Amino acid sequence: MKELQYLEIISKTLDDSSLLGNDCAFLQDFNLFITQDTLAEGVHFNLNTTTPYQLGQKAVNVNLSDLAAALAKPLYITVSLSLPSGIDSNFIQDFYKGINKSCEQYGITVAGGDLTGAEKKLVISICAIGKKVFDIDVSRHFSKPGDVIVTTGSHGDSAAGLKLLTQDVYKPEYLINRHLIPYPRLLQSTILAQILQKYDIKQLSIMDTSDGLGDAVFKLSKCSGFEFEIDYDSLPVSDDIKRLFPFEYKDMALWGGEDFELLFTVPEKIYNKLDKDKFIRIGNVSDKPFSETNKIYLEYKDKVFKHFEEA
Amino acid sequence: MKELQYLEIISKTLDDSSLLGNDCAFLQDFNLFITQDTLAEGVHFNLNTTTPYQLGQKAVNVNLSDLAAALAKPLYITVSLSLPSGIDSNFIQDFYKGINKSCEQYGITVAGGDLTGAEKKLVISICAIGKKVFDIDVSRHFSKPGDVIVTTGSHGDSAAGLKLLTQDVYKPEYLINRHLIPYPRLLQSTILAQILQKYDIKQLSIMDTSDGLGDAVFKLSKCSGFEFEIDYDSLPVSDDIKRLFPFEYKDMALWGGEDFELLFTVPEKIYNKLDKDKFIRIGNVSDKPFSETNKIYLEYKDKVFKHFEEA
Repeated sequence: MKELQYLEIISKTLDDSSLLGNDCAFLQDFNLFITQDTLAEGVHFNLNTTTPYQLGQKAVNVNLSDLAAALAKPLYITVSLSLPSGIDSNFIQDFYKGINKSCEQYGITVAGGDLTGAEKKLVISICAIGKKVFDIDVSRHFSKPGDVIVTTGSHGDSAAGLKLLTQDVYKPEYLINRHLIPYPRLLQSTILAQILQKYDIKQLSIMDTSDGLGDAVFKLSKCSGFEFEIDYDSLPVSDDIKRLFPFEYKDMALWGGEDFELLFTVPEKIYNKLDKDKFIRIGNVSDKPFSETNKIYLEYKDKVFKHFEEA
Repeated sequence: MKELQYLEIISKTLDDSSLLGNDCAFLQDFNLFITQDTLAEGVHFNLNTTTPYQLGQKAVNVNLSDLAAALAKPLYITVSLSLPSGIDSNFIQDFYKGINKSCEQYGITVAGGDLTGAEKKLVISICAIGKKVFDIDVSRHFSKPGDVIVTTGSHGDSAAGLKLLTQDVYKPEYLINRHLIPYPRLLQSTILAQILQKYDIKQLSIMDTSDGLGDAVFKLSKCSGFEFEIDYDSLPVSDDIKRLFPFEYKDMALWGGEDFELLFTVPEKIYNKLDKDKFIRIGNVSDKPFSETNKIYLEYKDKVFKHFEEA
């Protein structure tokens, strides 16, 4: 639970913490969203299991996932690299080919950055800037009783992919790729926003599942103040994972993290307009108040923030 | 010379590298400057010699120095921390008190950020956003023959402060503070911009001296294509350094780095309008073309990028 503790300390310490608390900050005067994510070697990636080309793409895409969760249109990134002495020119070139690939794919530009040394481990920090294009407020506290809880794809793939990478077994490429190169759900985000706009809905509870589906369910539920009733049997999980990890797949789906799907809640009438293949219903927002004794909360206390505990 | 090699590789690899090459990127559509700087433990700071409160201020201020070099007005920062397991709540609180102190001092807001784990070492990456308020293009290639070369303060203080920190000797507090909490030259930047505006000058060669005064002289000279004639005896160096480091102070002043002053060139008539206490003349731009055999270039090859070599 260190992350939440730390965030509380940060909010209390700053004179103005009004812009904190979402995946992106919204700069109202400029109609821009800004987000920053850092990937640290040994925590978020391992140079034995990723190529620099894949790493470059992942480093960009995880930031674009935050912009997708803001219904924003990505425009620019800045890239800051802290390089230990073992990194060479080939690495830099392949890493930036990966950056370039994602920039082409999503129509964005590298606006700047920073190159410095690092004592031991490679650290990549990317800042992404996107434009607000829809007149819809996004936050984590807009879920209402009766809303349908929706996600955009299967969960647990990335955790399974990571596990398989380090084992000498048959590795379905799909799972490995889901871990090495996550794709931001920008298309789904745009489709959703267009439908909301059509029905004049101006508020949306949404975030990405970068820290786990369970983490996202917990946070939207806690921020909105209502219990989320999850149909655990309906969670989208790949067949391969069920087969390869029959005892762990439910845990992987909820708490594995790094799937970079979206989680949001919408009224039933909006959900009915969405393509059921791309947007998967996993439960409903109940009218019971969020309680510290519900299942997700108890599991959350146990599992989350692996990053900190393991570091 | 690895930094320059890497920057060349990056420029060549990206389809669009048009926004790279200055301290800040300018996002024309939004009239905003953006910059990102990373501080890595063991390279840019050492937790034995800085308090978290000082470190928080330094991490913000080095970014604001880039905005000062863009004549921009700072507005927002995002803060990304990669925390190894040794860091505790007190550290976080004191670090953010430092962040808050700089935010108050310069009227900016923390707009977001990211907390993750790190395997070994603390890494801080801050992204700063500022508004363009003057109709003046800033870059590194606008220096013209006859321009006066100007800097905003003494050099070598930070390097001397760092050296003294690790020695059991008398430590002038001023030098230590110059290393631990550099101040961005935002006031000087505004004064300069107002004078340029008054005389309808629309282009300025400028950068900060974060990587050393010699580095800044080299870069403005190379980018502009003219040799910079530096009056080495006129370099502003604190008396304390001359006394404490009689054999090294010249080297510290040129190549020590982290002084976070500004270096720029302006026509003589503009220089005459500036307060000579705040703006120190250190030479003139000559009409000789920049040559790979000049003194600064040869020293540059030797000295710069200590960050990389030592990492």
